[in-house]
Amino acid sequence: MTYRAPHLLGIEPLHPTEITTVLDLAQTYAEDARAGRRHWDALADMTQINMFFENSTRTQASFELAGKRLGADVMNMGMQTSSVKKGETLIDTALTLNAMRPDLLVVRHPNSGAVDLLSQKVNCAVINAGDGRHEHPTQALLDALTIRRAKGRLHRLSIAVCGDIAHSRVARSNILLLGKMENRVRLIAPPTLMPSGVEEFGVECFDNMEEGLRDVDVVMMLRLQKERMDGGFIPSEREYFHRYGLDAAKLAHARPDAIVMHPGPMNRGVEIDGTLADDINRSVIQEQVEMGVAVRMAVMDLLARNLRGTRAPREVMA
Amino acid sequence: MTYRAPHLLGIEPLHPTEITTVLDLAQTYAEDARAGRRHWDALADMTQINMFFENSTRTQASFELAGKRLGADVMNMGMQTSSVKKGETLIDTALTLNAMRPDLLVVRHPNSGAVDLLSQKVNCAVINAGDGRHEHPTQALLDALTIRRAKGRLHRLSIAVCGDIAHSRVARSNILLLGKMENRVRLIAPPTLMPSGVEEFGVECFDNMEEGLRDVDVVMMLRLQKERMDGGFIPSEREYFHRYGLDAAKLAHARPDAIVMHPGPMNRGVEIDGTLADDINRSVIQEQVEMGVAVRMAVMDLLARNLRGTRAPREVMA
Amino acid sequence: MTYRAPHLLGIEPLHPTEITTVLDLAQTYAEDARAGRRHWDALADMTQINMFFENSTRTQASFELAGKRLGADVMNMGMQTSSVKKGETLIDTALTLNAMRPDLLVVRHPNSGAVDLLSQKVNCAVINAGDGRHEHPTQALLDALTIRRAKGRLHRLSIAVCGDIAHSRVARSNILLLGKMENRVRLIAPPTLMPSGVEEFGVECFDNMEEGLRDVDVVMMLRLQKERMDGGFIPSEREYFHRYGLDAAKLAHARPDAIVMHPGPMNRGVEIDGTLADDINRSVIQEQVEMGVAVRMAVMDLLARNLRGTRAPREVMA
Repeated sequence: MTYRAPHLLGIEPLHPTEITTVLDLAQTYAEDARAGRRHWDALADMTQINMFFENSTRTQASFELAGKRLGADVMNMGMQTSSVKKGETLIDTALTLNAMRPDLLVVRHPNSGAVDLLSQKVNCAVINAGDGRHEHPTQALLDALTIRRAKGRLHRLSIAVCGDIAHSRVARSNILLLGKMENRVRLIAPPTLMPSGVEEFGVECFDNMEEGLRDVDVVMMLRLQKERMDGGFIPSEREYFHRYGLDAAKLAHARPDAIVMHPGPMNRGVEIDGTLADDINRSVIQEQVEMGVAVRMAVMDLLARNLRGTRAPREVMA
Repeated sequence: MTYRAPHLLGIEPLHPTEITTVLDLAQTYAEDARAGRRHWDALADMTQINMFFENSTRTQASFELAGKRLGADVMNMGMQTSSVKKGETLIDTALTLNAMRPDLLVVRHPNSGAVDLLSQKVNCAVINAGDGRHEHPTQALLDALTIRRAKGRLHRLSIAVCGDIAHSRVARSNILLLGKMENRVRLIAPPTLMPSGVEEFGVECFDNMEEGLRDVDVVMMLRLQKERMDGGFIPSEREYFHRYGLDAAKLAHARPDAIVMHPGPMNRGVEIDGTLADDINRSVIQEQVEMGVAVRMAVMDLLARNLRGTRAPREVMA
Repeated sequence: MTYRAPHLLGIEPLHPTEITTVLDLAQTYAEDARAGRRHWDALADMTQINMFFENSTRTQASFELAGKRLGADVMNMGMQTSSVKKGETLIDTALTLNAMRPDLLVVRHPNSGAVDLLSQKVNCAVINAGDGRHEHPTQALLDALTIRRAKGRLHRLSIAVCGDIAHSRVARSNILLLGKMENRVRLIAPPTLMPSGVEEFGVECFDNMEEGLRDVDVVMMLRLQKERMDGGFIPSEREYFHRYGLDAAKLAHARPDAIVMHPGPMNRGVEIDGTLADDINRSVIQEQVEMGVAVRMAVMDLLARNLRGTRAPREVMA
């Protein structure tokens, strides 16, 4: 076992062997689930609190299911209706929850760095479920597992990440992970949605889909983050689809066995053609969701093992 | 065991022996609960997701409790604050949840037929918790169990369903179930709230309470569905109570041992006199709620048994 | 075991030995949790329903965690979006939930006396989680446990309760409890926030912090309940802090080993200086939260034991 970190705050601090450890364990959870298993005891003596300062039905559901299936006591905090509204600070809220002695704290927050800051104030394991434009590490891990299952490996692949890269923590975490595993990453975006200075991550940049998709093994579409575009350029949806939306014609430039990914929720007809999204020969979008639960189970299981190692010895498991 | 359906989408497709199977199992759960038992293991290796696109405190609570008491991992999706708002379609939302591999999906939706459509897209058992004006099968089953317990049988009874029949899926499911079990059903409603063509279901129609209630064994009041009356006739509450609200005087036309039912939540003084609703000699309204949990436990237990039969063999139960 | 009450509606009806019984059991839960234990089976055959008619992230979370850690099936009812909005009365809502056969009903309601009324209509154990300006008994019990742990005893202490006493059920429950255990209680508040006639509880009243804090062992700050100040006097925050906010200078009038408490959520810089709130040598604010979970576990465990004694005998535990 080579996963030693007390938290999962991002992909950036992870060593490639830690990434592989997570994916290997997630793979066994995924296979067991496919065989019909739905419940385990790995977190049977653990408390998990989900603290979502931004709404996210699917990510919160994925973490909630992952924890419940591992036997944890899981509590969701609706932070929109919480003490935060009564004027309490983020840190006071975190300290309050910490005093209730959770073992795992899953946090989503609109500000980049907020989860990191919070992790320094508590003595439980913190998992970043997305912070601002910074990182969304479990999304990158589930994407990696999906790619590895479809392609048989997670290195020396050519992968295009397409769309609203500027506002996307998903893109950022994926770029970091895919780079660590020695893949070639291409970014495709309109100039207004391409962050400046991104070349330093060792990626190639394109503003043209046909060119960018040439011979790639994986096409990873991003969601148009309209809710995060504060007053800047907002493309018309029709124009956007015409130039940057994925359809069969544009996909023909990629390798014939290229897979299509999207982190969801999809805007059909904006980022991606609906028929293509549903094509089970190309699209692995549903499998991404499935692997999401497995990856979150693996991450929480590994963090829990580390917690047990640092606790005073007692029988924590039945 | 004669319950073979993979889903519970409505009363319409059920055979009378299937209805009896559900009621018999629910009866044993109800008796055990009265003896003080609160927890079972029938769903111990199962995941249940409640997907309510319409608010419903009591129905959702009943399903949630039923699942938790059977040992399932239960997750509620607040679909009002969900990805649906980000532009995702019903089917994409369903496919996403399906990819998380639930075993049981409990769905309420404002559109008739939406639950049926959804059931064709997923590979788990789907339970209709109310779809538009179409069906609400677990309500009809809990009403049936309540009647059978009070009357000692569920056939050859005379049953009046009274009130806002036009907007009521509760009425529709009850008419179907009570007809299948060979009861005589009378509908009583103001002409504006009586659906046209309803006679083809083999019911008698009345627009007068005194006449309609004559010698019935069961009086089933409905809730005025003001939230579903889109711009049409809205009766004044006082006038409605005067003509169609149930009180002791009107009830005197029924059999002396007639029972009084209401699916809740009640508008006291509109559909029903408050004193009558609380009269434990006539009203079985609280028992309907109690039987609701038992019936939902029975339905989910039976669907889970079928799921186990179709899964690859493994020990799914502890 | 000397705890015999079927409910916990307030501190007022409790005998001092009952208070001690709760605190002793809570103390063992707190110690076990510090040693790393997170799950017990005391409520393994029980259903707990949390019915919060007022938002309260932290209190509801504390009860939810307490129940889940004891193995109960826990259900939260969001009463803001509930049948109450469809016109159902409090009592009908309570009767409906009661018919679902919960064992423990945790209720918060904006009206004083509402929880008491409700307890007379149901046949499960009811716990008051705060009703209007009346009582908040688990808060007083957790404050008592925190004091007892810090001071080594819970009698013959001098305790100052400071701030918005007029709107505070926390103050009221604390005054009752601390009085029963034979402590000297001092109240410090601006005249507009000091309830009239409070002297009959055997307390001393001050409108000056320096004088009121003289030689006290415990300083218990209250939250400014702006949301409950209906149109009356609302002090400016700066002026309030200057005169009644706790800072190091004012605290210097208390005993050198005096502890500082606050029920949260805190308004830093209004009721209390932020640095002081974080000073682990003086502030026990985080420990109050921790003891909150332990006290709620103890209360529910004791009520469940009483329930088991009154139920028909059967094996309720695995």
